[in-house]
Amino acid sequence: MAHNATGRTFGSDNHAGLHPEVLTALVAANTGDAAAYGDDQLTRRVLDRLRAEFGARQAYLVFNGTAANILGLSLMLRPYEAVICAESSHLNVDECGAAERVLGCKLLPVSTPSGKLTPELIAGRLTGLGDEHRAQPRVVQIAQVTELGTCYTLPELRAISAFSRDHGLLTYLDGARLANAAAYLDCSLADIAASVDVLSFGGTKNGALGVEAVLVRAPGLDAGGEYHRKQLMQLASKMRFLAAQMDALLAGDLWLNAARHANAMALRLANAVSMMPGVSLAYPVESNAVFAAMGRHEAAVLQQEWGFHVWSEEPDDRCTVRLMTAFNTTEQEVDDLADAVRRAVSRETAPADR
Amino acid sequence: MAHNATGRTFGSDNHAGLHPEVLTALVAANTGDAAAYGDDQLTRRVLDRLRAEFGARQAYLVFNGTAANILGLSLMLRPYEAVICAESSHLNVDECGAAERVLGCKLLPVSTPSGKLTPELIAGRLTGLGDEHRAQPRVVQIAQVTELGTCYTLPELRAISAFSRDHGLLTYLDGARLANAAAYLDCSLADIAASVDVLSFGGTKNGALGVEAVLVRAPGLDAGGEYHRKQLMQLASKMRFLAAQMDALLAGDLWLNAARHANAMALRLANAVSMMPGVSLAYPVESNAVFAAMGRHEAAVLQQEWGFHVWSEEPDDRCTVRLMTAFNTTEQEVDDLADAVRRAVSRETAPADR
Amino acid sequence: MAHNATGRTFGSDNHAGLHPEVLTALVAANTGDAAAYGDDQLTRRVLDRLRAEFGARQAYLVFNGTAANILGLSLMLRPYEAVICAESSHLNVDECGAAERVLGCKLLPVSTPSGKLTPELIAGRLTGLGDEHRAQPRVVQIAQVTELGTCYTLPELRAISAFSRDHGLLTYLDGARLANAAAYLDCSLADIAASVDVLSFGGTKNGALGVEAVLVRAPGLDAGGEYHRKQLMQLASKMRFLAAQMDALLAGDLWLNAARHANAMALRLANAVSMMPGVSLAYPVESNAVFAAMGRHEAAVLQQEWGFHVWSEEPDDRCTVRLMTAFNTTEQEVDDLADAVRRAVSRETAPADR
Amino acid sequence: MAHNATGRTFGSDNHAGLHPEVLTALVAANTGDAAAYGDDQLTRRVLDRLRAEFGARQAYLVFNGTAANILGLSLMLRPYEAVICAESSHLNVDECGAAERVLGCKLLPVSTPSGKLTPELIAGRLTGLGDEHRAQPRVVQIAQVTELGTCYTLPELRAISAFSRDHGLLTYLDGARLANAAAYLDCSLADIAASVDVLSFGGTKNGALGVEAVLVRAPGLDAGGEYHRKQLMQLASKMRFLAAQMDALLAGDLWLNAARHANAMALRLANAVSMMPGVSLAYPVESNAVFAAMGRHEAAVLQQEWGFHVWSEEPDDRCTVRLMTAFNTTEQEVDDLADAVRRAVSRETAPADR
Repeated sequence: MAHNATGRTFGSDNHAGLHPEVLTALVAANTGDAAAYGDDQLTRRVLDRLRAEFGARQAYLVFNGTAANILGLSLMLRPYEAVICAESSHLNVDECGAAERVLGCKLLPVSTPSGKLTPELIAGRLTGLGDEHRAQPRVVQIAQVTELGTCYTLPELRAISAFSRDHGLLTYLDGARLANAAAYLDCSLADIAASVDVLSFGGTKNGALGVEAVLVRAPGLDAGGEYHRKQLMQLASKMRFLAAQMDALLAGDLWLNAARHANAMALRLANAVSMMPGVSLAYPVESNAVFAAMGRHEAAVLQQEWGFHVWSEEPDDRCTVRLMTAFNTTEQEVDDLADAVRRAVSRETAPADR
Repeated sequence: MAHNATGRTFGSDNHAGLHPEVLTALVAANTGDAAAYGDDQLTRRVLDRLRAEFGARQAYLVFNGTAANILGLSLMLRPYEAVICAESSHLNVDECGAAERVLGCKLLPVSTPSGKLTPELIAGRLTGLGDEHRAQPRVVQIAQVTELGTCYTLPELRAISAFSRDHGLLTYLDGARLANAAAYLDCSLADIAASVDVLSFGGTKNGALGVEAVLVRAPGLDAGGEYHRKQLMQLASKMRFLAAQMDALLAGDLWLNAARHANAMALRLANAVSMMPGVSLAYPVESNAVFAAMGRHEAAVLQQEWGFHVWSEEPDDRCTVRLMTAFNTTEQEVDDLADAVRRAVSRETAPADR
Repeated sequence: MAHNATGRTFGSDNHAGLHPEVLTALVAANTGDAAAYGDDQLTRRVLDRLRAEFGARQAYLVFNGTAANILGLSLMLRPYEAVICAESSHLNVDECGAAERVLGCKLLPVSTPSGKLTPELIAGRLTGLGDEHRAQPRVVQIAQVTELGTCYTLPELRAISAFSRDHGLLTYLDGARLANAAAYLDCSLADIAASVDVLSFGGTKNGALGVEAVLVRAPGLDAGGEYHRKQLMQLASKMRFLAAQMDALLAGDLWLNAARHANAMALRLANAVSMMPGVSLAYPVESNAVFAAMGRHEAAVLQQEWGFHVWSEEPDDRCTVRLMTAFNTTEQEVDDLADAVRRAVSRETAPADR
Repeated sequence: MAHNATGRTFGSDNHAGLHPEVLTALVAANTGDAAAYGDDQLTRRVLDRLRAEFGARQAYLVFNGTAANILGLSLMLRPYEAVICAESSHLNVDECGAAERVLGCKLLPVSTPSGKLTPELIAGRLTGLGDEHRAQPRVVQIAQVTELGTCYTLPELRAISAFSRDHGLLTYLDGARLANAAAYLDCSLADIAASVDVLSFGGTKNGALGVEAVLVRAPGLDAGGEYHRKQLMQLASKMRFLAAQMDALLAGDLWLNAARHANAMALRLANAVSMMPGVSLAYPVESNAVFAAMGRHEAAVLQQEWGFHVWSEEPDDRCTVRLMTAFNTTEQEVDDLADAVRRAVSRETAPADR
């Protein structure tokens, strides 16, 4: 963790705690008894709201992002069917093989330039169709925001959607940071959702304690989800407290304001560091993540103080670091980090000046 | 839900909200950034405390009781091994087949008089040992408190433990209501845990928002749990808020006081209703549950107001209802319910008075 | 195994080898090259024949009976759905938990008088419908012949079929010994198949080396089976040799003649032993199995020579043995066994004679 | 299939039927009754022989190669562990996702130059060790012969073995064509097996009807296999007929002679076609497979007559075809195919001659 003055890290948006309004909502929900497992008024109201917001037939609340992905995909796949996804995707890399264990399905990872699939890349995986020896591609899985902080444009999403439909494929969108994408694209949640069959909408990385929604838009996929959720150990008994978190995020578009702020902080940081000698952006900054390449030594020094992740090692003693902002990152903290980077970099790149 | 004056139900201990001290702990934990996934000081401290309390080698926090059971059993079983459990157990009846889907293991349910296994009952399931056509019994699964509100005595637990050890079986204890059992038996958590290899310790039904611990005591089973937890979608990113709930329950033995209170309310209720004509207790009251047999008509009337579950239909127009108390049930509420039962019953049993 | 003059056992119909006509067919199929995985003329012809014989939309050949059951059920179930079956069924008892591991589904076993389900028994398991905490009953699984050698009559099958349809349930029939049932009932395979959605048709216990067919009758279930089969490790590369076995069984109704003979031998044996003092039939003899109760000591002596299974221990030093006949059992062998039983029994029951 | 004079195809070694000696052994095994499920003398003898041949602690017979792979890996993996394998491997590409469904494990495919892993390539996949978000690499899976017809040398195998041991990894070898590798390397089966923990030994592609052995060499992995086999639907009831096939292959080193012949035919073919203009070998010919690049048009014409697979499309209207030989391929057939290729190629490459 960070050892700077404020204790703020740039390690992850889930290092931040609860947004004050989420906490207020939790407190407010703690009034009297309420039916368990979602059979309470608050949960019903929140699910109605979610369905309306996303144009969805069904909505389910679960505990975390991995669970949202697995529950969503559970509704779409038989065990001999496969999921085309980016090689760098959270589903493929960071969920400890949950898809393989729980779904029993094969992932077909695709190497991508910046975490984004394209119809061309998807097409390259459409081999062995109708061949009983091959797992059959069935779902195209994308993330918005991607694991590399990039966003699909709405036309890009529509192109994937059209291609998928034309090839008998379903589309699933991992929306753990969907709020940040909508903020970046300046569009509604429904605008993004319109291109996919099933998606998740994350609250946890945007100020909640732990809640994600699974939204089912496509007809024919909206059955049985409640059983899958229970069987996948995701049915909260005191559901009202999951609903309360989501309610707070939806109220007054808190989700959007929080995400806009985090994105703005990332942009501020990117603008500052990208001008520095020896620092370059690895990917376009389209959300609350800044992936920056710098010298390994400088990164190691900075990491002590600012608690970020070294994402990958690069040649020539360089590396790429991931700097995440959150709803609670301040301009001052961004500027402090930028100053620290500047100091570290100038020490490295200007030995002659000393 | 209940439509009485206070809104209190006797439907389930998870109809209650958060204990005020749990809420206070959540608020207190929301200070600054913290490392995710349990790499924070609060979580480390809580896990240390749990290990010490239970004499455990490993401790894991998860979201709910079903997950605790499945994670715990995951550490103990290969797919061709089977679990001997009570037919009425939560694992067998109320988890939507999570054991079968996620573990891939067969359950060997045993009919029991009051939800409790015995060495004799377990022995009856030890057939086909060494026969490759049969799933091989490997784990004895018990619940303390059982699904029927009963408790194993410490000698009963030790007998099961000794029998299991002698027959090469491991023991798992579902402790979703372990606090109520320790309160009833007036013993420590370690006293109960001493008889089993792996167990869970529930917080949710005892005033938490949603947290359960899995404790691994036996050597040789304490590896790999963190991967299982992630793969089973139970790794909370903002773990500190799960830890905070457990911390509050452990502080000053809140878990014990809350459970003692709930048990006392159940006993008060049981004492009141068991004396009424036409009402009888279906099982001994050894926790915070009262299973009472009464006429179906009376039950239906009372259910409107008090929101409890009809557990089973019985012959002669009778049924068994389950009345659950919680940390927040008051004596007044118990007495109000008892009065209501008395009125309902007397209407039924005293037609001459009309 | 048996240590009598002929080496014939009454242990199982799979102790018998290949019917000579099956062997002839294997030899005949070994001519030149043939496309693998069933893309050969012989396989196509045999599948056409099977579909016609059973009124089926799809037919698949697999290696053994357990695989046939699991493949068939794979087409019918989602993981949160459950299978109602007899507690004594092969699926529940003798497949080492394959259903739980491979399907991830819960079995709901029902205690039955003689291995046969009834609408009433099925109805008793239809609890928790629509309750997300419960695995949802979806398939009624029956075996014809049952594990206890009994047969459903055609009206009994139709009653289960009608009840299932009325309650939104699918029906699967384990036909590992379907030939013996058709022989006993003196009906066609289609007569039996008409009452179920998916079924298997066994060859192995009726003179084949190892081949079973899975037949899909119901619309909507006839897709994806070829992928399930491959994924379940049941796709034979040299399929023509599985097809050849089935071809031989179908040619000239060899399946029926072989089964009739085996049934006749069982009846001859039953008639003989059931008259003996101290021997009684445990179940009606409706196929090629005789379940007979006798003294444990006599059974142990006879078992040495005749290689049968002791099925269950009974009170009063008695037990039930299973005596199986096969296509190659001779009248002489039956009579020899009957004589041996008579001798063993008379020694036991007539001590005064000595 | 092939439409040439002899009906011989070069499509696959499993297009060939049974080796005459295998058929003879099947006929010979059909004598009297035999205990089922491998409890017969022939099976015991064959398993003893296999254990001795491979230096193995346990040996299991199964129906096909996919099953051998899955059973072998079942003994080595917990669900959160992963398998490093060649991207082109049968396990990854041609088993319809059996590993993911049945094992629940993630495959970590590695792009390889000619189907062969190296310590360097394996090392590149050893990321995220100890990180609970990542499936943990546990098994290195190699095939000998590889899917591209190449063989690891014994030093190459030893290097992988040493590297794996040093990094806490187990090694599994898919030996569907192990006989061809031993023939090519002119070494014993044990020489190859010495470098791995668990392996399969294929009979089906080498003249059997359908039998593969799984051999467990490493201590600690040799338990529970019989339950896995049954649960994975691979326990043959009439096991003696699987054993008889393997017995025939082992007798007089039939497996070796058959493989040597097939290899020699492949080499003869390779030598002939590799000299032709416009034809080139895609991989070294180290078994019974010839991968040859040629023009698409020529390939299409030849395919009609010779029934081989087009393996991949290449740029410039070229493609790579796979030409497989088998135990029963004759020199005349090879020469006929070579002539046909020569004619096809010369038509294409010598337009001036017309």
